[in-house]
Parts: sequence; C-alpha cells; structure tokens
Amino acid sequence: MEAELKEMLTDLDTLKRSLPDNPSLHSSIDKMQLRVEHLTNLAKSAPGRRLKVKDMSAEVVDSNPYSRLMALQRMGIVENYERIREFSVAIVGIGGVGSVAAEMLTRCGIGRLLLYDYDKVELANMNRLFFRPEQVGMTKTDAAVQTLSDINPDVVLESYTLNITTLQGFETFMSSLKNKTFCPSKQGIGVDLVLSCVDNYEARMVVNQACNELNQAWMESGVSEDAVSGHIQLLIPGETACFACAPPLVVASGVDERTLKREGVCAASLPTTMGVVAGLLVQNTLKYLLKFGYVSPYLGYNALKDYFPTMEMKPNPQCSNAACLERQNEYILAKPARDAAAKAKKEEASEPECPIHDDNEWNISVLDDSEVLTTDVKSSDALPEGLVRELPSADEFQKASAHQDTTNSMDDLEDLRKQLDALNAD
Amino acid sequence: MEAELKEMLTDLDTLKRSLPDNPSLHSSIDKMQLRVEHLTNLAKSAPGRRLKVKDMSAEVVDSNPYSRLMALQRMGIVENYERIREFSVAIVGIGGVGSVAAEMLTRCGIGRLLLYDYDKVELANMNRLFFRPEQVGMTKTDAAVQTLSDINPDVVLESYTLNITTLQGFETFMSSLKNKTFCPSKQGIGVDLVLSCVDNYEARMVVNQACNELNQAWMESGVSEDAVSGHIQLLIPGETACFACAPPLVVASGVDERTLKREGVCAASLPTTMGVVAGLLVQNTLKYLLKFGYVSPYLGYNALKDYFPTMEMKPNPQCSNAACLERQNEYILAKPARDAAAKAKKEEASEPECPIHDDNEWNISVLDDSEVLTTDVKSSDALPEGLVRELPSADEFQKASAHQDTTNSMDDLEDLRKQLDALNAD
Repeated sequence: MEAELKEMLTDLDTLKRSLPDNPSLHSSIDKMQLRVEHLTNLAKSAPGRRLKVKDMSAEVVDSNPYSRLMALQRMGIVENYERIREFSVAIVGIGGVGSVAAEMLTRCGIGRLLLYDYDKVELANMNRLFFRPEQVGMTKTDAAVQTLSDINPDVVLESYTLNITTLQGFETFMSSLKNKTFCPSKQGIGVDLVLSCVDNYEARMVVNQACNELNQAWMESGVSEDAVSGHIQLLIPGETACFACAPPLVVASGVDERTLKREGVCAASLPTTMGVVAGLLVQNTLKYLLKFGYVSPYLGYNALKDYFPTMEMKPNPQCSNAACLERQNEYILAKPARDAAAKAKKEEASEPECPIHDDNEWNISVLDDSEVLTTDVKSSDALPEGLVRELPSADEFQKASAHQDTTNSMDDLEDLRKQLDALNAD
Repeated sequence: MEAELKEMLTDLDTLKRSLPDNPSLHSSIDKMQLRVEHLTNLAKSAPGRRLKVKDMSAEVVDSNPYSRLMALQRMGIVENYERIREFSVAIVGIGGVGSVAAEMLTRCGIGRLLLYDYDKVELANMNRLFFRPEQVGMTKTDAAVQTLSDINPDVVLESYTLNITTLQGFETFMSSLKNKTFCPSKQGIGVDLVLSCVDNYEARMVVNQACNELNQAWMESGVSEDAVSGHIQLLIPGETACFACAPPLVVASGVDERTLKREGVCAASLPTTMGVVAGLLVQNTLKYLLKFGYVSPYLGYNALKDYFPTMEMKPNPQCSNAACLERQNEYILAKPARDAAAKAKKEEASEPECPIHDDNEWNISVLDDSEVLTTDVKSSDALPEGLVRELPSADEFQKASAHQDTTNSMDDLEDLRKQLDALNAD
C-alpha cells in the first residue's frame, strides 16, 4: 500500500507540471498531495512492528520485551534464561493446543520454531485461542507465521504445510528435524524437542516413529473429544514408554475428525481446556530445556473435578516398535556409564540439597484442607526486597499447620490414617 | 482510511471536470482514479470481520463459529450452552491473566463483558499472551476491545479505563456493576460474576468491598512474583471466606509494581503460568455459570512441582469487613429455607445419583501410579458413535486396577497405610 501511495504522489507531481498555469487547479493538486501524504502516514503507523533485538536485556524499562522473563534469573528460578535463544522446538499440529503453544514459546523468545500442519483456518476454529476471523481460508501454518512474526520478530519461524502421515510429508518432516544449520555445534539432531499437538492416533504414531528413529525426546498432548479433559506426556526413547509401548488410555477409534464432520458430528472443544493443556505443555517444555523444577513424565487434567493425575510409564520390552526396542537396548547398555556419572556428580556436590520430603516417591499428595501461614522462609527461597510470595511452595503445604477458626481443618496424619481405615473397612 | 480515499475520488472527479479539454491530462486522472479504487479495496480487505449471528447453531459446518461449543450439549457436558449469551461477566485488571480470560470468554460467546483497567500496553507486556506490539501505547481496555470485537462481534463489550482504587473509579465501578439494562428481568445486580485479575492487594480489597456490598459472587486469581505459582478462588459473600476474612496466603507488601520498576526491579512473568491460571479461572467460571462439573472453591498451581492444592475456607465471624458480617448473618438466617429447599429437591429426585466415592470429603487424592484400562462405561457417560474418551474420569482412576508390566504400581490402600505409618514414624 505504501508503494502505491508513493507512485500516486509522483503521478500528482507529473500532472501538476503538465497543467496550464491556473492557481485554482494547482491548489487542488497541492491539497491532494497533502491527503496522500496523510494516507501514507496512516498506512505506515498501522503495522507498528517492533525491531529485532540483539541480546536479551534484563533492564527494567517498559520498552524491553524480555524484562519479565530475564527476571526469572534474578528470582533464582532459572540459571540462564537467555539460553532459550539456542533452542529449536518442532510443533506438529497447529490447532487448539499447538497454536497456543507456539504463541507461548514465541513470547518466551525461543530461538527457532518449526511448525507443521496441512489444514486451513475455519470459522469453526474461533472457539479456541490464537486464530482470528480474518485469517479464515489461510493455511494454519501461514496464519501462525503471520501472527507470530508480528509478536516476536526475534524468533526464527519455519512453516511446513504438509501432512506428516503421507510418505512425502514424513520424508520432509524427518529431514527438517535433522537440519542442523541453526545451531551446528549442538549435540543431537537439529531440534531440541518435538511437541505433538495433533488430534488423532495415526499422527501420534508417526511422531512416535520419527522420534524413536531419531532418538529424540518429545512431548505428547491431547484433549478429549468432550473437551473437559486433557494430558501431556514426556517421551524419551528407550527411557520411558513410547507411544506404542502401552496402548494409549483409550483405544484409537480410527475415525478422523473429517469423517465425523461429514456425518454432522464434531468433537467439542473449549479455549479453557486447550489453554490449560498448552500452558502445562509449554511449562514442561521450559522446565525441560532450561533445567528448572520437576519435569512431569505425565500430567492429566480432568476439568470437571479439577483433578490432575500423574504417573510414570517404563518402556515395554515387548513393544511392537522396532526402533523403540533398539533405544531400550542402548539405554540398558549405557547404565554403567550413567551410574558412574551420577556418582561423580553426587560426590562433586559438597552440600546435600534435598529438603526433607522434597521427593515424594509414591506420588501421593495429601491435600490439606487448611490455610497455611508460613513464618520461616528458606534462605534459598529469598526474594529481592519488596517482593513477597503469594503462594507457599508445595513443601510448605506439606508441613502446614492448621488454622482452626476459618477453615475445615484435618489435624494430622493420625486422623488421615483413621479415615483411610474407615474407607478400607467399607 | 476508507473515508479519506473516498474524498480523494471526489477531488479527482472535480479536478477532471475543471480541466481543459486535453486527452493526456484526462487519461492521467483516470489512471489515478483507478489507483485510488484499488487502494480502497486493499483497505477494505484488511480487517475481514465476520458478521454477527442471531442464534447459536449446533450445525457442523466449517463456517459456524459455535459448532464445537454447542457440541458440549450433545456430549452431555452442558445442558443448555446457549444460555451463555445471557451472562454478563466483569473482569477487573486486563493484564496477563485478565486479557486471556477475556479472550476465552469472548471465544466462548459470553453475552457481555465489562473490562476495567487504567494501564497502557507496553513492550514489556509482550511476554504474556494477548496484546500485540502494534498496540503499544494504547490503553489496555481499548486494545482489548479492538481485538475482542474482531474475534467475536456477538459479544457486548464495555470498556472502563479507570482505577477502581480511586474514589471516582470506585463509584463508576459500582454503578456499572449495578446497571441492569442488558438483561433487566434477571435476579441480582447487573453482572453474573466478577473476575478479579489484578496484581496487587489494594485492588483485591476494593473488589472484595464492592462484592460484599453488592452481595455478588466473584472469583479471585493471582500469579506469584516469581511467575511459577498461581491460584484461583471462588468467593460467595456470607457463604465462603471473603478476602478480608483470612489474611491472603502472603501478607501484602504494599509496594506496587510501579515503585518496583522505578528501582530497576520487576516481577517475573511467564505466558505459561498466566495462561494456565486464566484457563482454570474461566473453566471455573463456565462451570459456575452453566452449572456443570465441580466448581472449585480454591485451586492452586505450583508450576515447579505440577502440584495443585485445593481447600475450602469458611467465613470468619470476626472479619474486619462490615459488609461481610452482614452477608454472614443473612446466610445464617436463610439456613432453614435452604435446608427445606435441599430436602424438597432430594425428595423430588427419584433415583439416588451419587456413585460410590464420588465425593471425597477430605480432599485426599490417591494418585495411582498405574495405567488404567477401563472396560465398563457408565450409561450416563456414553458418547456418540465414533467418539471415545481419551482419559478415564477421576472416579475411574480411584477404582483403577494396576497394570503390572509397564508401570510402577502401588497396590492398594493397605500399602498406602503402611507408607503413611512409615512417614509418621519419622
């Protein structure tokens, strides 16, 4: 549009010079030239893209898009936040979960995103976050690149409009994952993590196959057809169960969404459930890449009950996937080396860093019906002056003292045991 | 821009008529007119807004923005989804949580949203979802209305650029909440729920005061300054603790973000944590308004451990808030009427509808380390043909059978009791 307006100015100039010497005609041309200049300014101000930044600054000014992320370092949550710019993440499926995951990673300043989808944006997608009505008809990958590059021009975006379940699609998928030009010195293949945000069994099995073959860690995500539950899962070839090791929690129906739609039936979806699942997925991704907190091997979300099941799954020695069996063997063979490394690391660390009850090996959460008033703050948890914690940490919840007046309290473990006895006696 | 281009066409027309009879001059004007028409088309095609729709249709076509939401009815999750168009929700604070909550409700097709904020969009906000770099400098309320009206023109949006903690701001806040013109026949005040998405103690106390005075249910939300935990809480005046009943989980520091920023310190924030909290908040809102699932009185989120504490808080008879004490008295006085209504409802229902162990009054979750294979599906849980559940319900998790080969299993309650005994013996 700016180019057209510039040509328009030239046209008016030419016209003015070829006009007879008539002041009223000339002033009318002058007026039009001013109007075109005004339109040029309007057109220029519309997009207002921000410029790329060379380094992530921790400076606290309104114009710094990374100040609130770099603050994670000062708060002691992440050791080196800026490392995020070295990472490449592949997102397969840019739908209700994948598009939001892509936006979150983009806003976090991830180095490079590879986006895979073959579908187009439809009005029927408007009940989930991210896509806008004016993008209807665009491919999801193109629409995503349009939005994401506006949000953060620092992120390298690669868009693959293809179906990974076709032979040709799978080949392009594999070669794009193996491309190491973004960070040639890094170990492994060309990406640091693959996120599966697809909506069907077949595509999940393809991601599983690719990651088993490439020995690449990935995370799986899903939302149920009734829109009120979802899950995320970390899969490390050889170390955890792969997607083929254990049948998924439901048997795949083998009926894809397009067939359903043709019959006048579609799955339900909610921006809330999709947003929560995307948030948990990218949170797990950040914890995995930037090495902080506990990376969940599996986390479910039951929205009707606000229930969040967790579990761990070991690989199945009878897995039907040949590449998985190869990775399992490699993992077993590498055990002595792993043990030695772990022992060396343990000896290196002079102070024991595990607080009592920090690890809870049975995955039992005692959800205490009591309000928690914390008085002592561990020194490692200290915050800068002027900042206070809004929630106690999970550790503090476990050593909570009951506050009788205003809460339904449950006194102690003795009580809990009696209640469990009663439950058992039913 | 379109208006300016139209005037430009008129100008060219006038000029043409006043020109001497010279074919070359006339053709140059014709050329310019074509160019302006082209620019007009360009300007028009940019927004591409969708038209309003009169009724929410369940028809499964790509052009229906509500098909995936109306599917919640067919799936038996929500009895009458379209009721959402009758509801008004006020969102106080259009920041990292409030803006995403507003987007989710807009995409869900909420009837009316009232948005309150006094702040402007800054580049430093770009690490959270929703706002875009080209909106920097706009007020958050204006920028939100711009984006939300494009996403869903069916939602009635009211924008209040004000600070509710000032005397004048509080008056406007109160009168806007009481305005019943949107749905005059409804009981209560003019809104169905207030969502507090503010980032400081003072503003929370103001929302608390307003809702206690108006006897209005509200939900509070918050994210910690280190960005890795958050919570949502439902507050019903007289029935649950109000924000003044129990000191919040942290004592307010009394230092607001602007002071911190001046000193070169800012709170950390992450789009993931904010997205999860917004998702849990709006999910609870949908469950509360559309009457499905369990509405959580309090739900915490500890991102480092993927731990989700829950609790309930009763009102404090010694609360310092006078309006809260009035609501508490009213609630106590209404107990006989409530009991009678509950009894009548119970007698009306011919079949008992509580499955065994559905309610877990101690809020203990036994997170079973096992994979669940469900074989029997309750008839009330039946899905349409071609659809299968991806996750078992929480009930099914509780009666889960262990699957030995591929999982770390924990056998039964007997085992759990032994482990608790051991824990107690420490």
